[in-house]
Amino acid sequence: MSQPRPDPVQPADDNARSLARKLLSEATHAALAYTDPATAAPGISRIAFGLCPAYQPMTLVSALSAHHAALTTHPEAALMVGEVGDKGDPLTHPRLMLRVRASFIDRKSPDHPALRDHWLLGHPKARLYIDFADFALVRLQPVSALLNGGFGKAFRLEVEDLLPPT
Amino acid sequence: MSQPRPDPVQPADDNARSLARKLLSEATHAALAYTDPATAAPGISRIAFGLCPAYQPMTLVSALSAHHAALTTHPEAALMVGEVGDKGDPLTHPRLMLRVRASFIDRKSPDHPALRDHWLLGHPKARLYIDFADFALVRLQPVSALLNGGFGKAFRLEVEDLLPPT
Repeated sequence: MSQPRPDPVQPADDNARSLARKLLSEATHAALAYTDPATAAPGISRIAFGLCPAYQPMTLVSALSAHHAALTTHPEAALMVGEVGDKGDPLTHPRLMLRVRASFIDRKSPDHPALRDHWLLGHPKARLYIDFADFALVRLQPVSALLNGGFGKAFRLEVEDLLPPT
Repeated sequence: MSQPRPDPVQPADDNARSLARKLLSEATHAALAYTDPATAAPGISRIAFGLCPAYQPMTLVSALSAHHAALTTHPEAALMVGEVGDKGDPLTHPRLMLRVRASFIDRKSPDHPALRDHWLLGHPKARLYIDFADFALVRLQPVSALLNGGFGKAFRLEVEDLLPPT
């Protein structure tokens, strides 16, 4: 550990930005890392995942889930999207990791109806429970991003890199 | 939030124990939640995953990975195994979440050769890099476990439930 190490993470290029946006737009679920409010140790859950019309990551959570209580106490979290295919080394399949800050969307806020309807376009089965009082839409605002496309192919992205080119 | 909530998590039964062991034994990768040593915020990575001959979860990590530095500083972590299939609501597919404590296996320890050889049986492509000086086998000792088999089907498991019946 005494010799200097090269930084294994490169700045993003157009291919990395394009792949990151594809992973985000195609994901319907994600892995969420959160801080357990009881122990301060890391916790992990599978969450529903989608983008709002402004391309901000969102989820829909039940108040009965472990991560609901956690995000209420510690809004800092991290998520990962990008599926592993059937073939080859699972660690060569691309995945995107985001550090995020969670904010619950009040059901009475003026934004809520449009966000609810947009969510159902990507998650039609959620129609069965999205209007239950103990489900909430949550924004997961990106703070930083890392794309891993396999060994030696890691890229640091800016938050703006996650938005479509203007 | 003022009315008492039912505990949504049930004690494990034989079906839950069997499914948890199946998810662990079939997984070749996992999502790992860790504490970022720089910010104390949660981080997340995809890791290689396998069981040692004594059915303890293990991973193989590169010293260049973000989670290597994190686990060195904060050995408490959480992992999730269980793939999402092609059909249906992704949140109905079973997954197992473990709170774990990580311990690096010294390359000079008497256990290392047998653990290395066993790892390669499940991860033959790792032969290309497992002997590099900056890769390490890491035990991920379970502290607690939660099986989620879909809405309303969450089970709390004891650490012993993850081992084969004797």
